[in-house]
Amino acid sequence: MLSEKTRFGLDETAIPEQWYNIIPDLKSPLAPPLAPDGGPLDPGQLAAIFPMECIKQEMSPERYIDIPGAVIDVYKTYRPSPLLRAKQLEKDLGLPAGVRIYYKYEGVSPAGSHKPNTAIPQAYYNKQEGITKISTETGAGQWGSALAIAGALFGIDIEVFMVKVSFEQKPYRRILMETYGATVHASPTNLTDSGRRVLGLDPDSTGSLGIAISEAVEVAASRPDTNYALGSVLNHVCLHQTIIGQEAIAQMELAADEPDVVIGCVGGGSNFSGLAFPYYRRKLDGKSSARLVGVEPKACPTLTAGEYRYDLGDEAGMTPQLLMYTLGHDFVPAGIHAGGLRFHGDSPLVSQLLHDGGMEAVAVDQTACFAAAVQFARTEGILPAPESSHAIRAAIDEALAAQAAGEDRVILFGLSGHGNFDLAAYAQYMSGDLKDFDYAAGVVLGGK
Amino acid sequence: MLSEKTRFGLDETAIPEQWYNIIPDLKSPLAPPLAPDGGPLDPGQLAAIFPMECIKQEMSPERYIDIPGAVIDVYKTYRPSPLLRAKQLEKDLGLPAGVRIYYKYEGVSPAGSHKPNTAIPQAYYNKQEGITKISTETGAGQWGSALAIAGALFGIDIEVFMVKVSFEQKPYRRILMETYGATVHASPTNLTDSGRRVLGLDPDSTGSLGIAISEAVEVAASRPDTNYALGSVLNHVCLHQTIIGQEAIAQMELAADEPDVVIGCVGGGSNFSGLAFPYYRRKLDGKSSARLVGVEPKACPTLTAGEYRYDLGDEAGMTPQLLMYTLGHDFVPAGIHAGGLRFHGDSPLVSQLLHDGGMEAVAVDQTACFAAAVQFARTEGILPAPESSHAIRAAIDEALAAQAAGEDRVILFGLSGHGNFDLAAYAQYMSGDLKDFDYAAGVVLGGK
Repeated sequence: MLSEKTRFGLDETAIPEQWYNIIPDLKSPLAPPLAPDGGPLDPGQLAAIFPMECIKQEMSPERYIDIPGAVIDVYKTYRPSPLLRAKQLEKDLGLPAGVRIYYKYEGVSPAGSHKPNTAIPQAYYNKQEGITKISTETGAGQWGSALAIAGALFGIDIEVFMVKVSFEQKPYRRILMETYGATVHASPTNLTDSGRRVLGLDPDSTGSLGIAISEAVEVAASRPDTNYALGSVLNHVCLHQTIIGQEAIAQMELAADEPDVVIGCVGGGSNFSGLAFPYYRRKLDGKSSARLVGVEPKACPTLTAGEYRYDLGDEAGMTPQLLMYTLGHDFVPAGIHAGGLRFHGDSPLVSQLLHDGGMEAVAVDQTACFAAAVQFARTEGILPAPESSHAIRAAIDEALAAQAAGEDRVILFGLSGHGNFDLAAYAQYMSGDLKDFDYAAGVVLGGK
Repeated sequence: MLSEKTRFGLDETAIPEQWYNIIPDLKSPLAPPLAPDGGPLDPGQLAAIFPMECIKQEMSPERYIDIPGAVIDVYKTYRPSPLLRAKQLEKDLGLPAGVRIYYKYEGVSPAGSHKPNTAIPQAYYNKQEGITKISTETGAGQWGSALAIAGALFGIDIEVFMVKVSFEQKPYRRILMETYGATVHASPTNLTDSGRRVLGLDPDSTGSLGIAISEAVEVAASRPDTNYALGSVLNHVCLHQTIIGQEAIAQMELAADEPDVVIGCVGGGSNFSGLAFPYYRRKLDGKSSARLVGVEPKACPTLTAGEYRYDLGDEAGMTPQLLMYTLGHDFVPAGIHAGGLRFHGDSPLVSQLLHDGGMEAVAVDQTACFAAAVQFARTEGILPAPESSHAIRAAIDEALAAQAAGEDRVILFGLSGHGNFDLAAYAQYMSGDLKDFDYAAGVVLGGK
């Protein structure tokens, strides 16, 4: 049985009023984005698809950026998110008192993940600038759902290009977006040049995230009333997520504890940024000496096995080139269940932080993550998203390593979302049918 | 855009330390349960399947009952649950300032509904009394999931008899329970006399909640290490839910507002009890004059169209007889999507409160509930469970009636859970295929 406090509560008045912008604190100047062909980027191309406020944030030298009051009001409907001590998990692992595990849980948001933290301000800024429609792409549907909710709240029409194979295999995610009023297309469509080109070559194409991005960007670029929104990777997206880490710092103070390790899973990088960047600032302030650890799948190990160079954000070459760790923009990762971690590159901010020695990265196997997720569900009661299970795996490994070394260690990890829509993956794991794909060992391709 | 506070936060230290027991405050003495044949009930029959502490609570004269510390510790992992003002919904409805809507949201629990509030103490008391296994039944899976989580947290094996038609149609709910370590059977099974009897008559039986209850009770009654647990109806279950209303009272004080109407959906009655009973006490204290309104489906209108008499709790006659509003224990309601509201009877406590004039009841149509649920999702961001949508419908109707009458009215309703597992129902509603079933108009039977 539990005997001490496990939850560290802030009331709604404790939501931070500013986001933390890591750009001015980076060791080296921010590398600028380049045009798709590698030349200088025309700022007009960004202005055609993003609101000015997001473009400003993308390169802002300000350390703290005010969160608009209307955004805070919506944050308050689900924030502050809980910070909990994993006491039952600690007990199940047989950890000594000096090894403690905490987690910050973003699954209480209406979309069930951290994604609304940026969907809400993006919808708000677009609304402020007179935009009435936002196009976006989605794979499994996490990002599309979050933007559909934000669009409904701010009165913006959301048009989602959903990868056709997911559209057909995951009808519930599509229905969820439609319930919030979004229009959802199975991509490739006949609505865009990009889509028609693909369908011309292969009428039975099941689509890809790269094609869906191309369609969404094309729609935004060709209509004055329509912008485009991205759910990760870009600097302003990482910025919006820093509300997570700022809350966590205040909650860890309520817990009268200080993490030695801060862990988050990394796909595009926004979830990790959200928790870890405010701790990076805390380290600069001399109040923390925490190691910051990004966790990625061995099937798509961008940070641990990628090259640090300029590359495109999509397969088709519609997006700017960004300086980042990349496995190559034509790399197609194996079909692991953590769809949100299947991106060939990474956030430039996270990439630069790693390159400058400000963080570490580890890669883990899919089955080991699901084992950790099931152990977590049975001890802490929450069913984790497959993406989040990567952070749980790394947190457990850190705890066991500290115990083996006879060291004290306080571990904080980000539980970025729940797994209510991922039960087919759990069924596959429990039936013993789940496979591992190790890029470094040459196992690259798997099923969808 | 929003401009005032919408969320009213308590930190985790504000969780009530006692449940509120309405029994001593009822106008008339509690009617005792009777044996299945209508004779006096042998207390030994209860002791064979329930822990003594729950049996004591079932008839306790104490107004407040201490919540064990170990239960509070688990409550703290998801409580206090949020209380929010529905400002965007108010705006969408065009309500004047004097008509305000608040809701208490239980969907943040690990099971996504209010059910863990009683699953946790039931698992705890059983553990304390040396029980190692609990059997139960589940229809769509909400209750089975909550008990599976509680069992995992307290180290008790959970055996769930899941109605076969749901077992086959809703594999994700089954997988969820299995992920938490529960054993799930498709009922009827060959494991019990009750199951074998049914299969003997019809080997292809798809089961019913009545048969599943019989199987679960039989298993508990026949094994000394096994007890049975019920997720609604009984007095101790309603008692455990009163943590909801006590928190709501404290949060409404933070909102500096006081409800004129308190609304909850009613199936077995535990959700309604949880929110409304503490307000009933507040009325006795002279601090509230709120109307308490239970909302039920027109397809199963027990409180508004049932008889107030002794009846069995199940179809097969394995359970005690209870004094309640009932449509008859052999009544099979139409297959509405709010599966949790398809019970032929009601909690004896709720029934007695209605009979004594301490509350009101209304019945609403299924399609009108889904219309309210979609409006709520698009304004407040949360996708409601079909059961909870009944409370939303009634809250909107109250607000519009107040506006039409030119009256001020503060409305508080219980949002008992999220609809993440109910998207097929939303798809049916949005495609226009959803039907209404009005018992009072003679429309009784529908699809499953």
